[in-house]
Amino acid sequence: MGDRWGTSRLEAFSDGVFAIAATLLVLEIGVPEARIGDLWRGIGNEWPSYLAYATSFLTIGALWLGHHAIVRRLALADATIMRINLALLMVVAFLPYPTRLVAEAIDNSESERAAALFYGACLLVIAVLINVMWRYAVRNRELLEPGVSDDEARAVLRASTPNVILYAIISVLAVFAPRAAAIGFLVIAVVAVFRARGEGPRRRVGAGSGARTP
Amino acid sequence: MGDRWGTSRLEAFSDGVFAIAATLLVLEIGVPEARIGDLWRGIGNEWPSYLAYATSFLTIGALWLGHHAIVRRLALADATIMRINLALLMVVAFLPYPTRLVAEAIDNSESERAAALFYGACLLVIAVLINVMWRYAVRNRELLEPGVSDDEARAVLRASTPNVILYAIISVLAVFAPRAAAIGFLVIAVVAVFRARGEGPRRRVGAGSGARTP
Amino acid sequence: MGDRWGTSRLEAFSDGVFAIAATLLVLEIGVPEARIGDLWRGIGNEWPSYLAYATSFLTIGALWLGHHAIVRRLALADATIMRINLALLMVVAFLPYPTRLVAEAIDNSESERAAALFYGACLLVIAVLINVMWRYAVRNRELLEPGVSDDEARAVLRASTPNVILYAIISVLAVFAPRAAAIGFLVIAVVAVFRARGEGPRRRVGAGSGARTP
Amino acid sequence: MGDRWGTSRLEAFSDGVFAIAATLLVLEIGVPEARIGDLWRGIGNEWPSYLAYATSFLTIGALWLGHHAIVRRLALADATIMRINLALLMVVAFLPYPTRLVAEAIDNSESERAAALFYGACLLVIAVLINVMWRYAVRNRELLEPGVSDDEARAVLRASTPNVILYAIISVLAVFAPRAAAIGFLVIAVVAVFRARGEGPRRRVGAGSGARTP
Repeated sequence: MGDRWGTSRLEAFSDGVFAIAATLLVLEIGVPEARIGDLWRGIGNEWPSYLAYATSFLTIGALWLGHHAIVRRLALADATIMRINLALLMVVAFLPYPTRLVAEAIDNSESERAAALFYGACLLVIAVLINVMWRYAVRNRELLEPGVSDDEARAVLRASTPNVILYAIISVLAVFAPRAAAIGFLVIAVVAVFRARGEGPRRRVGAGSGARTP
Repeated sequence: MGDRWGTSRLEAFSDGVFAIAATLLVLEIGVPEARIGDLWRGIGNEWPSYLAYATSFLTIGALWLGHHAIVRRLALADATIMRINLALLMVVAFLPYPTRLVAEAIDNSESERAAALFYGACLLVIAVLINVMWRYAVRNRELLEPGVSDDEARAVLRASTPNVILYAIISVLAVFAPRAAAIGFLVIAVVAVFRARGEGPRRRVGAGSGARTP
Repeated sequence: MGDRWGTSRLEAFSDGVFAIAATLLVLEIGVPEARIGDLWRGIGNEWPSYLAYATSFLTIGALWLGHHAIVRRLALADATIMRINLALLMVVAFLPYPTRLVAEAIDNSESERAAALFYGACLLVIAVLINVMWRYAVRNRELLEPGVSDDEARAVLRASTPNVILYAIISVLAVFAPRAAAIGFLVIAVVAVFRARGEGPRRRVGAGSGARTP
Repeated sequence: MGDRWGTSRLEAFSDGVFAIAATLLVLEIGVPEARIGDLWRGIGNEWPSYLAYATSFLTIGALWLGHHAIVRRLALADATIMRINLALLMVVAFLPYPTRLVAEAIDNSESERAAALFYGACLLVIAVLINVMWRYAVRNRELLEPGVSDDEARAVLRASTPNVILYAIISVLAVFAPRAAAIGFLVIAVVAVFRARGEGPRRRVGAGSGARTP
């Protein structure tokens, strides 16, 4: 057939893109011009950049956890999975750009609105792609690890669905209250990190040695 | 002999370069100067950058899939493979530069021509190197996994050959119609992603557990 | 349960962030304007950047060794470990920013103070997070590899605790003597590299082949 | 003892730094200001950047091959190996900076001299560190894989020693003829890529499956 892939290099490439995109975010933070004796104020004035950095870093972190939860449940990937994954990575790697826009647009109500909407749209696309990827895998059960029960499949889906709805709502909110939307994106990221599901009590966990899963 | 390499670290290094080159592309997108109330137009004006980003990201993605298909069929690498691979990575890692040129040269017919030709030349070199790498491996069958049949070898070759011809044609087209060429590069990338061949029904697929390849 | 993770992808993602953050540091070094015949002086004038580069690179290197020592002693990770690790990586990936601030603030006593304090605060947060991560793992022994004795657990903790205290002290010192503090950060990094503990005489070491640990 | 490390994460971290440093080089190439109708000349004028890019990329590629040859012959790493390796990576990750200096200093005889000498000094330090790392490993044979014969150890050493001498000579040459030195660095890199030694006919090669080493 020639249309089957193992998941290890998919993981390696995806992890690379997630890690690099998250780490590049720092390059977008402007260094305050070192006005004599006033670096404190300069550091303080950069707070929108710090907020944007934290939001995007945690968002990418949560995405990585969600992606991890999905890929670990795949026995193999087919061409469709590879394509969805590539589209997903393309938007994730793009995130530093809207992050910078949001950080720079603050303090200007018109720009804030455009930046927050643009940022929200990117996150919405990412959430939809993650969701589609897992739905596709569940509908093609030969792609799943044998040990994945229907309950588990639904639980993983449930973990990723709310984000689609939330990002849609907050993107609408961004039109009326861009700052509230900015806080909303941060809250979603933090919650997503806290809600992330592990790999479950399966044999691959701690495969190296002495796994004692209950 | 001392001139044999396992493929795992070759894979790791190549994946790293592919992932980093793809992710660095975003740094080349200029942030529109935040003119009051006009960020939407600023975001819109950057469309050549978005087009260039998508084209290069998908091109690198398709290259990664093609590279993956080749390396997974290698039992080991010899010095020639390592050198071809290094040359290939050198051009791949260079791609963000012509990408930026194309994005900035739009709207100026003379510059567009130069940028599109330069971009096309880089892609042509990459396509030739991928092609040469696989041809070399097939001619030295002790480098291939035992399970790779002649049919499979030809199929992998057939998957990479059209790009050589297409990139040559579109590079010529770039002299007369640089914008059509830019669209052409995007189309090739999308088609290449859709035509990518998997690892085939071989034992390494899903080696981790429970692979059920037909 | 769904709240257990293997450590291999945690390692891969963390290694990626550590390696990228360390390598991005070089982008922060300004190229001296090439005044005719005076590049030597220009290169020389950048010494604060070199000092900052070396300090941050070695700090990240020491962190990587410390992180390595911890993760290798984990049989698996739970949700809390994943969260602490994500917070840790968020601050590590942020380090290039205070590094640049320190390099640019030199020669201005007021700015130096702010930059050194900000830099120290980031390192303090990192040291605390590493410490908390290991304390948590030790208190939840089902997360540890079976072979990890109480003595070893304490030894790893002892290796990371001094940094918390030292970074706190030197951050205070930064208020009075920012340059001495800058030297202090470098010294701590060098000492940390020299004090780093290995993986111990355990089976995973050199698992590949022929490990002969005494 | 606690002062032993497996080599897999050392490899992963080192590969990351090598791959990132090589890929960041492209960010240092300046985009020619798009003067109307003159992009060709602009692209042409950047030739010192392309030369510097190729030289540094191939140098890092050759270093990666050399590093690979060494690490694959280690059964495990001790604290000294880890420290030498960290120092090595610190200079490798620094290379994009002197690369940019060389590219920008061309066309000014005084600046060329300083930049070429600085570049050569960095390469000399790297060559010495690689050399010291392998010498140390050979002198502590419990670090080596059992299968590594004295002959092989000497061969690996012989592969890395000439560079130390060559880089010293060319750095001196840089004082008198900086452009000749620039060509020299490129030639050394190309030769090093061609002289790189593989992993030898050992069991780890193609460990995955069906290795047929003579």
